[in-house]
Amino acid sequence: MHRQLREEKVFKDPVHNYIHVQDEIIWSLINTTEFQRLRRIRQLGTSYLTFHGAEHSRFSHSLGVYEITRRIISQFEQSKYPDWPRDERLVALCAALLHDLGHGPFSHSIEQAFQMNHEDWTCKILLGDTEVGAVLRRLGDDFPDKVAAVIRKDYDKAIVVNLVSSPLDADRMDYLLRDAYFTGVNYGTIDMDRILRMLRPFQGRVVVKESGMHAVEDYLMSRYQMYWQVYFHPVTRSSEIILRQIFRRAKELYNEGYSFAFLPDPLPGLFNRELTVQEYLLLDEALIQTTFMQWRNDKDKLLSDLCCRFMDRKLYKYVETDSLDKELIEEIRRAFAEVGLNPDYDLEIDFPTDLPYDVFRPDGEFREKQILLLDRQDRLREISEVSDIVRSISGLHRGKFHLYFPDNKLIPMLNKLPQEIADLFQI
Amino acid sequence: MHRQLREEKVFKDPVHNYIHVQDEIIWSLINTTEFQRLRRIRQLGTSYLTFHGAEHSRFSHSLGVYEITRRIISQFEQSKYPDWPRDERLVALCAALLHDLGHGPFSHSIEQAFQMNHEDWTCKILLGDTEVGAVLRRLGDDFPDKVAAVIRKDYDKAIVVNLVSSPLDADRMDYLLRDAYFTGVNYGTIDMDRILRMLRPFQGRVVVKESGMHAVEDYLMSRYQMYWQVYFHPVTRSSEIILRQIFRRAKELYNEGYSFAFLPDPLPGLFNRELTVQEYLLLDEALIQTTFMQWRNDKDKLLSDLCCRFMDRKLYKYVETDSLDKELIEEIRRAFAEVGLNPDYDLEIDFPTDLPYDVFRPDGEFREKQILLLDRQDRLREISEVSDIVRSISGLHRGKFHLYFPDNKLIPMLNKLPQEIADLFQI
Amino acid sequence: MHRQLREEKVFKDPVHNYIHVQDEIIWSLINTTEFQRLRRIRQLGTSYLTFHGAEHSRFSHSLGVYEITRRIISQFEQSKYPDWPRDERLVALCAALLHDLGHGPFSHSIEQAFQMNHEDWTCKILLGDTEVGAVLRRLGDDFPDKVAAVIRKDYDKAIVVNLVSSPLDADRMDYLLRDAYFTGVNYGTIDMDRILRMLRPFQGRVVVKESGMHAVEDYLMSRYQMYWQVYFHPVTRSSEIILRQIFRRAKELYNEGYSFAFLPDPLPGLFNRELTVQEYLLLDEALIQTTFMQWRNDKDKLLSDLCCRFMDRKLYKYVETDSLDKELIEEIRRAFAEVGLNPDYDLEIDFPTDLPYDVFRPDGEFREKQILLLDRQDRLREISEVSDIVRSISGLHRGKFHLYFPDNKLIPMLNKLPQEIADLFQI
Amino acid sequence: MHRQLREEKVFKDPVHNYIHVQDEIIWSLINTTEFQRLRRIRQLGTSYLTFHGAEHSRFSHSLGVYEITRRIISQFEQSKYPDWPRDERLVALCAALLHDLGHGPFSHSIEQAFQMNHEDWTCKILLGDTEVGAVLRRLGDDFPDKVAAVIRKDYDKAIVVNLVSSPLDADRMDYLLRDAYFTGVNYGTIDMDRILRMLRPFQGRVVVKESGMHAVEDYLMSRYQMYWQVYFHPVTRSSEIILRQIFRRAKELYNEGYSFAFLPDPLPGLFNRELTVQEYLLLDEALIQTTFMQWRNDKDKLLSDLCCRFMDRKLYKYVETDSLDKELIEEIRRAFAEVGLNPDYDLEIDFPTDLPYDVFRPDGEFREKQILLLDRQDRLREISEVSDIVRSISGLHRGKFHLYFPDNKLIPMLNKLPQEIADLFQI
Repeated sequence: MHRQLREEKVFKDPVHNYIHVQDEIIWSLINTTEFQRLRRIRQLGTSYLTFHGAEHSRFSHSLGVYEITRRIISQFEQSKYPDWPRDERLVALCAALLHDLGHGPFSHSIEQAFQMNHEDWTCKILLGDTEVGAVLRRLGDDFPDKVAAVIRKDYDKAIVVNLVSSPLDADRMDYLLRDAYFTGVNYGTIDMDRILRMLRPFQGRVVVKESGMHAVEDYLMSRYQMYWQVYFHPVTRSSEIILRQIFRRAKELYNEGYSFAFLPDPLPGLFNRELTVQEYLLLDEALIQTTFMQWRNDKDKLLSDLCCRFMDRKLYKYVETDSLDKELIEEIRRAFAEVGLNPDYDLEIDFPTDLPYDVFRPDGEFREKQILLLDRQDRLREISEVSDIVRSISGLHRGKFHLYFPDNKLIPMLNKLPQEIADLFQI
Repeated sequence: MHRQLREEKVFKDPVHNYIHVQDEIIWSLINTTEFQRLRRIRQLGTSYLTFHGAEHSRFSHSLGVYEITRRIISQFEQSKYPDWPRDERLVALCAALLHDLGHGPFSHSIEQAFQMNHEDWTCKILLGDTEVGAVLRRLGDDFPDKVAAVIRKDYDKAIVVNLVSSPLDADRMDYLLRDAYFTGVNYGTIDMDRILRMLRPFQGRVVVKESGMHAVEDYLMSRYQMYWQVYFHPVTRSSEIILRQIFRRAKELYNEGYSFAFLPDPLPGLFNRELTVQEYLLLDEALIQTTFMQWRNDKDKLLSDLCCRFMDRKLYKYVETDSLDKELIEEIRRAFAEVGLNPDYDLEIDFPTDLPYDVFRPDGEFREKQILLLDRQDRLREISEVSDIVRSISGLHRGKFHLYFPDNKLIPMLNKLPQEIADLFQI
Repeated sequence: MHRQLREEKVFKDPVHNYIHVQDEIIWSLINTTEFQRLRRIRQLGTSYLTFHGAEHSRFSHSLGVYEITRRIISQFEQSKYPDWPRDERLVALCAALLHDLGHGPFSHSIEQAFQMNHEDWTCKILLGDTEVGAVLRRLGDDFPDKVAAVIRKDYDKAIVVNLVSSPLDADRMDYLLRDAYFTGVNYGTIDMDRILRMLRPFQGRVVVKESGMHAVEDYLMSRYQMYWQVYFHPVTRSSEIILRQIFRRAKELYNEGYSFAFLPDPLPGLFNRELTVQEYLLLDEALIQTTFMQWRNDKDKLLSDLCCRFMDRKLYKYVETDSLDKELIEEIRRAFAEVGLNPDYDLEIDFPTDLPYDVFRPDGEFREKQILLLDRQDRLREISEVSDIVRSISGLHRGKFHLYFPDNKLIPMLNKLPQEIADLFQI
Repeated sequence: MHRQLREEKVFKDPVHNYIHVQDEIIWSLINTTEFQRLRRIRQLGTSYLTFHGAEHSRFSHSLGVYEITRRIISQFEQSKYPDWPRDERLVALCAALLHDLGHGPFSHSIEQAFQMNHEDWTCKILLGDTEVGAVLRRLGDDFPDKVAAVIRKDYDKAIVVNLVSSPLDADRMDYLLRDAYFTGVNYGTIDMDRILRMLRPFQGRVVVKESGMHAVEDYLMSRYQMYWQVYFHPVTRSSEIILRQIFRRAKELYNEGYSFAFLPDPLPGLFNRELTVQEYLLLDEALIQTTFMQWRNDKDKLLSDLCCRFMDRKLYKYVETDSLDKELIEEIRRAFAEVGLNPDYDLEIDFPTDLPYDVFRPDGEFREKQILLLDRQDRLREISEVSDIVRSISGLHRGKFHLYFPDNKLIPMLNKLPQEIADLFQI
């Protein structure tokens, strides 16, 4: 049963000033053990090694996404827009608050290393025997399913999905502002108030009034800049590479039956890929950091070296190169092996746009990935049809190959490598 | 030997915009394992449970203190003030950077629980067989001693001590600005540029030009507000109480020879009070959080309950009262015991001003604790002689007794307690 | 008849981000010639000569006061507080918007020079044959009277007066924030959102929930600082003195029947004190500046010198002194006259607290001047009973006498003045 | 002769926090009557009618440009870059401070209406019998010529010209930041500190280290957004149109020998195009506003109507259209004339890119208009060769034709106009 709090509660937030909680269910969700766990998962993973301010947690981001969603809906309700389905308010707010619930420690790296998916875990937590699940069920037995459907993007009210997950959603707006604030990088400042005022529920989705076009352009540019300045920063990439190497090495050792001096729960389950929800919830960044601190002195030299590197920020160096093909890569690996380097650990190749690239692309086949402008005659147009600047940047994929390597090992070997390969690694 | 970096390095910082590093020694110190450890110690301890943005680390604060000191000295040098001893630049910068090096996890609570002192540990780390020690010794065998002396406040050049540790020092200026930024509380905004311009080296200490008086007043007011809004926030105090109870309970159990399912190094040494420097350096907040996560399921119910409370933020509630004497406290404890509550854990009494109270007090006997104004005739006057507002707030000690307790246990017992005691605990 | 705008209008505002207009009458009032005139009246008079950013107008301040009032009322309505009289919304908004309508150019100085009162003029404009009057009458023949009553503080619903004019009103909150923003002085930052959340309509007035006490303390401290840093800045006072001397000299000449080469309407009416509302509305700061520019070349040397001083910012210098009595003043004047200086123009004595001193004083006899805190038991207490810091600063009146003089005239005469008088004027 | 001030002077500035003045000549220049006049010329002309905060003056902008230049040079000097000619410091600082000295009131509009050029006037003021000229000559008889040469962009040390006038100069950086601050629009936030750190004097010009590329991209994007959001805002354009119509009408009347009831000096000279420097310096925005206020009641109906429109912000409405050719324009004009409208005043056509379009274009033939990146091998490349995003936006010229008209006159006539013309004017 839905109830309002007797008195509104607030959280002081540096980005939105205050987070306002009016519904008892939201308050209860925030106070669950599963939601509190998000305090121990950083919003930006290893970025704190590049930007020392970036220690902010997914807990604060989740509150932020909730708050933006709350403001959008509150405006939809006050303006009495007929296309907004009023019954969906709580589903949307819960989905906004909980959308990141399943993130693991150093999420992107751990997912890659262990083939997991945070969205699946989010749904398992929502639907499972958890405190969050219990709170959600207070609103009806099917309520957790509804929230999970929004998060899986297959809820039948598309507009709710749209609010929480679209190229101009509450998630993206919060992370741009928040990551800019905590890193100190000022590329992420967007005029959120203006964007919010320009949003309209229209024919089952959230669109933007045409007069908000410039604000949306600015938002897309900010995102573009944040990707290249922060999210794809080569120092951050280097730390992610080391992190993945640690996971890889530990898994190799585990699979070989190696006996670790330190291997607290639920790490064995993680290596086995047999984690229960309760075990998964034990995973947090404190545990990972503590494990690495203990592994600094592990008897496996490779593992201990990697852990020292990660904890002491002795990262791999990198060089950039414009072109790189499979053949050349193989050649480098062979050359490395010949001089006694380990091509599996002493070389990593990274091409940022290989990643799920999140910068807005209008050529997607699905309307859900588009930003639509609503003109005065109630016609919809995809933004890049109208905005020159969006059209200009839409096709852009820049990026170079980056070769990462431990300079203390590689540099003494440079003169033994074939000249053309040695040339690649001149810092 | 002192060397400049070939090219200045910078850190992006949300508070000072950029931290500038020009000296090779500073760069090397930042890259030591001991300094990197400060990334895993929060600047504000458990305050993140009250202000979710306050996840910033002592690493970032230490860089900030260094940067402010660098700017002050750079201005002293540019202005060619004769009273500034130019040879002391590196000693001052190193002391500024390293002054918090010995902080343990959740510093104030752990120090109280285990009778440790972070300043002692800082000096042990500086002077010991550590990476930091090795870097410092590059500038001379006595250089680590000099830096340690500044931190212990017994360096023979008092002006250097003054710069790093005085009522208007780089440390306090950085933490006011930084804590305000990350909590989102806007009481800590001070006009640092103006204060910096007004500082003068004069007769062996740092004083303030009289025309900077208003900026100093504003700084002292900001500090006053930050103490009551942030540092003494009752929710933070509640979390510190639980933290100390966990440490206390674990030590009791350890002393009883209890067998913990999880007790990683160096916790046994911590309980024994027999930590080496190397062991001490293993202590960080990730380790503490990880231990508490494992202890949530400990078979000792008291320990596991306390750990759940801390990790899930199920803190003690509190009531305020104006007066409380020993007798009444004993009475309450007896009454608690009679109804089956545990007065050692189910009741904590806190009086904020019991703490080392940092708000400026001019009545201290030592000049080092005073802020001195320099007038046009080169006369010095203590600020509260000149400023009405400083005089007004100087004597102020406000604060009430706070009684903290587990409401889930206490409330069912309220009607069994004597009425006058039950009345005290009405939330 | 009251109507909502078809679509909300907004003004971009650097302080409140957006000013929201939803009512047709507010939109119409903003577009009247009388309200647009406020663009040509600076909010801070001559302060721009001290703080070059302070060019902001009463137009922007008036929008700001309206916006804060709108937010307070909107929160009262959403929270459904029973003590808020809903019918009064538009009266309050119009009074907030129009409360400064009658300000003349360089308001405080011109009022002093010509014994005028801006509140009277505001009411004349509201009630007269003006565009504003016509718009207001659309809501009923007695509507202009209601708005005027609020501004005169004798409206029968005291809570409306309270909202627009009390020690914690929308007017003061806007000017603190706005003046801090445009001068660049950062003492005026207050947590307005928090204060707004803490306001309650209660028994016919606006009070503050007790838990908002610290935010109010901070607001009062900000005000204190802004008074001494900005509003009473001696350079600003010097420029006001010259301004008043210009007005005085021109009036003297006018009364003597002097023939000015430049004396546009409505200046003759101003000198005669026979201004109609329509004439009064011609007065703005562009006219005053233009007149002074023309008078720079006036044949009256005193007038032209003063105008050059004002326009070129060649202000009087000043010295401070702790004590000054009538006798000493007379002595100085006599000594000035003896050496050929003009004591009526070459000497001005200023004591800032002589002014209507706006810093909060709780000892006023009227409750309207008090800030009341509402505790959980619905008891009201005056804030200085509860807050040590407010009690400490309440009695404070600091301030020294300032003697202003033209240094180019005085300095050559110093050695002819009696020594004890000459000593006073050592800069 | 060059002298340092005994003690540095500062101006509090909301954008740069403090403006620092160390040189006596700078201080003297600021205190001249010609420089103080810039307080009465708004930085953004009529933009205050669109953004009410935009009342900031060219005085504050000029101080800002000086300050940025000072910081750049100070960094060049501290870094001891060999390519920076140290003797040029004062020339550069004076040129930076004075580059806008010749701006008239509502500069762009008045220049267009009276075929004047502010740069010419700046040089006349520098070189003429003015206070500024006298101060400059203290540094040598040829010093004013040097400063004028920098402003005319023909100084023989190209690097000095480059500093004050290039696509990434102190002028542009200050105006972006300042205009964003005062309008409240947040598109103009750039990371100036980073850009400044990346600037290098190199082979006679100022270039950017390659690692500063992203900061420059962001700066160019900010500029793009500011042009479309602020500088080309249609409401501002509408007010400029009315302003030019007033000037045009007054000139027509003057040329017909009309007798104005109000025509203070130096307006006759302005109409005659026979202004001396001293007369030109009387022109300021106060004079223009005062004149228009008096002309509101002029007996020429067209002139008085236009002045009412401008002063009361009753601007022309506008419609957009994609294409418009000469023929169609002629057709519209004929149709207007036929229904009794005045095609010379009741219709204005505007195409923003007709203006001197300041957004960076790399295809200019002159290197001075290019931003050059310096790579580690000391090679220079034009930024759009390296940056995809700059290349993408370089060619962009967007913009539509805007038709401005008095809606109160046009709307009643719409049904008398040919349908296809009437259709164009549907708001």
